[in-house]
Amino acid sequence: MSSLPPITDIDLRRATLCQLLHWLAAGRTHPVKLTEVYLDAIKRINPELNACIGQHPSGLVLEQAQSAEHRRRDGVIGRLDGIPVALKDNFDVAGWPTRSGLPGSVPPAVHDAHVVARLRASGAVLLGKTNMDEGALGAVTHNPHFGPTHNPHRRGYTAGGSSGGAAAAVAAGLAVAAIGSDSLGSIRIPASYCGVFALKPTQGEISARGMTPAARRLDTVGLLARSVDDLTVLLQVLAGYDADDPRSRRRRVALSPPDWEPGKLRCGLLPNLAAWGVQPDVADVFEAALAKLEHERGDCRTVDFDDWHFARARRAGLLLMEAEMLGTFATQLADTEHPVSPQFRRMLDYAARKTAADYADADRVLDAATLKMRRLFAQIDVLVMPTTPQGAFPLDAPVPDTQADLTSFASLAGCPAVSIPMGTLPNGLPIGMQLVGARGSDLRLLELAQVWSATLDAAPAYPVWHEHVAA
Amino acid sequence: MSSLPPITDIDLRRATLCQLLHWLAAGRTHPVKLTEVYLDAIKRINPELNACIGQHPSGLVLEQAQSAEHRRRDGVIGRLDGIPVALKDNFDVAGWPTRSGLPGSVPPAVHDAHVVARLRASGAVLLGKTNMDEGALGAVTHNPHFGPTHNPHRRGYTAGGSSGGAAAAVAAGLAVAAIGSDSLGSIRIPASYCGVFALKPTQGEISARGMTPAARRLDTVGLLARSVDDLTVLLQVLAGYDADDPRSRRRRVALSPPDWEPGKLRCGLLPNLAAWGVQPDVADVFEAALAKLEHERGDCRTVDFDDWHFARARRAGLLLMEAEMLGTFATQLADTEHPVSPQFRRMLDYAARKTAADYADADRVLDAATLKMRRLFAQIDVLVMPTTPQGAFPLDAPVPDTQADLTSFASLAGCPAVSIPMGTLPNGLPIGMQLVGARGSDLRLLELAQVWSATLDAAPAYPVWHEHVAA
Repeated sequence: MSSLPPITDIDLRRATLCQLLHWLAAGRTHPVKLTEVYLDAIKRINPELNACIGQHPSGLVLEQAQSAEHRRRDGVIGRLDGIPVALKDNFDVAGWPTRSGLPGSVPPAVHDAHVVARLRASGAVLLGKTNMDEGALGAVTHNPHFGPTHNPHRRGYTAGGSSGGAAAAVAAGLAVAAIGSDSLGSIRIPASYCGVFALKPTQGEISARGMTPAARRLDTVGLLARSVDDLTVLLQVLAGYDADDPRSRRRRVALSPPDWEPGKLRCGLLPNLAAWGVQPDVADVFEAALAKLEHERGDCRTVDFDDWHFARARRAGLLLMEAEMLGTFATQLADTEHPVSPQFRRMLDYAARKTAADYADADRVLDAATLKMRRLFAQIDVLVMPTTPQGAFPLDAPVPDTQADLTSFASLAGCPAVSIPMGTLPNGLPIGMQLVGARGSDLRLLELAQVWSATLDAAPAYPVWHEHVAA
Repeated sequence: MSSLPPITDIDLRRATLCQLLHWLAAGRTHPVKLTEVYLDAIKRINPELNACIGQHPSGLVLEQAQSAEHRRRDGVIGRLDGIPVALKDNFDVAGWPTRSGLPGSVPPAVHDAHVVARLRASGAVLLGKTNMDEGALGAVTHNPHFGPTHNPHRRGYTAGGSSGGAAAAVAAGLAVAAIGSDSLGSIRIPASYCGVFALKPTQGEISARGMTPAARRLDTVGLLARSVDDLTVLLQVLAGYDADDPRSRRRRVALSPPDWEPGKLRCGLLPNLAAWGVQPDVADVFEAALAKLEHERGDCRTVDFDDWHFARARRAGLLLMEAEMLGTFATQLADTEHPVSPQFRRMLDYAARKTAADYADADRVLDAATLKMRRLFAQIDVLVMPTTPQGAFPLDAPVPDTQADLTSFASLAGCPAVSIPMGTLPNGLPIGMQLVGARGSDLRLLELAQVWSATLDAAPAYPVWHEHVAA
């Protein structure tokens, strides 16, 4: 042991979840120490970053770490025992309000969300809640009630959204991993902008019970972490059938086993990235990444999306979301003392003018999208593209309306998608590559992403601006 | 062979599908002969019964029978080779219009519905289309454009609906089996009134592609036949994954194997049938049937439906259906030369005034119903009740609004349900018993229904009024 270099606090904040599990198992660090390092980082750095908006009192957090430490000493440990994790503020934690980025006060949740209960059972240390777009309807985390979250790589830039606080916390070393939600791209977009790894699993693989519904047909729990292996561990802890979630899937087999062969991989590409709004600098990084992956990406072919009517499908998904939110947030919408933002109200007013027949039509459009993707994945194994058409932009710049165009594909059809860092833009900010697979191919997709991300080796350097600011 | 009694035409019209397969295999009858008997019966009897509204020309039907006969001679036969089958007029048959009980002319369908293609592949002889309620929205088959279908057991009485023509054809010996649709009870209600057997499978087990959508979330293909074994054979021919139906289910295993033990069966009963609108004469027949099943029904317990809010769930299902029909039947609704009935338009106008948020709320109510049934089937194996609260009533009597109350349970939660004849009402008309199981328990439910129906032995005597009338 004496020959091993000491593990510094900054090491503990940069390490992957898997590395930390290794250090914990080897006794090279301990849950209380690890948690103290994260609590200290939040205290010092979060005032500038604004990623965490509802930290649990340090005492309560440390109590969890102490319990984990006792379990580790006794040798009866959970899969994530002692790992500090953050939660987007649209997951119920018993005794805490679930604010979902909206103003006003809500009563504390009575039950833990399914994933929160699973995290607790696995021994994770729950640090608290992270910032998000108002009602999860947006992708910038410039929240009018809780303030903007800054990109950990550049102050004044967006972290993306709607799980922006969660992604920023993971990137900045304020949480080892975070749980967010993703209905049209809400974990993948901030993962792309912040340079972290994200998994949106197959719809129904992880129970969404206790997560504030956006559009039930599209809603998935999303995972944010510092490596593909971390995502795999989290998926194993959180996935599974939940009889109390109407959309929970019973698996036919354990998540489909990794059975791809690199040489035989059929990889689908969009024929014309520019037509999808992909910025030239992003396209360049993507091309360079594909070139690096020459030996791993197998046979690449362009896929035909001419009959996809994608914009229509995305509008359909948004309509479902906004119409459901009229019910989900009825109390907050009626609260004149703590009004929602005019922009949020405007989006929901749009849905309020739509008829039941419009909703039914939109739902049918999603049926067509589901079939389109099913047919596509009869021809290819994985669909590859940039995660976002652009990198992070200044918080005061106009918001591009293409942010979720590339992430919506997977959402509209219930498919799994992984985002991994693929390189650095000329302005020094990270950008993600997205891998989309057929429903149920989550593990296969993660294995592929693991190999590719090892080849790309593109996880950005640890962001440091906030360390200077907060020093 | 010479010692066997000859098989009469009336035998061929009374026999079960399984019996006919046996006779065909033994060479005791032949596809052309069998088909001629059915075509002749339709010609003589249907003018009074009005069950069949779109018979294919005899020549085309006989051609199918001749092909089946050749295949039987060559020894390469399908599972249903030579069996005459009828289809409700909301299934696409290539080259024929799909009228769905609505007025006006529609272009002929381009493709066969999935089940039609499967029937053809199995060698079945397609006789043609059967009468139904206008747009499948109703349960009496008193169609304003195609006329009423009469109950084969009593002229002037309803056959039920919306698959009334299909059930009447099977009961009257105009088809060996029929394919209908069931979104809230549309095969089970006419099966109960007409004294035949029906299966509404688990949602997604049989592809609904090419069936006119009513409410996609509730729609299932339904089977009508003269015995439980016939339903099992049909299910085996028709069930399976269809990549082109967004709601088609990939099974975890072949349909869940029959694994119930009569002595250990947990059988659920509604605590108070009268509160569900069940008429006293129906309740009496039900009680008598349960008494007969004393040794087969295992441990009976009443189930708690206090928190079920059933009426709300049924209204929610109806709203989904009507809202979707605004899109499905947009052409017909706009056709002023061939107007839909005022009643049909009134029902759809109701939905036209509902908002997208109302639709989303209704869809959530169905989520709650799904969970309620899931929890119920953790406690019991089968839920048993009369199929309908009342038997067939005169076509000119007021339509009771409780017709679909007992069949909706299974529909709202996507569960399978079987209806078997359970006895005769004091007025001499048949009445059905319904067995509802957990999603995916179709085969188990059929095995149970087979044992119960053997004990009850309640399939009504072959109906004869129309034979006299048409003689």
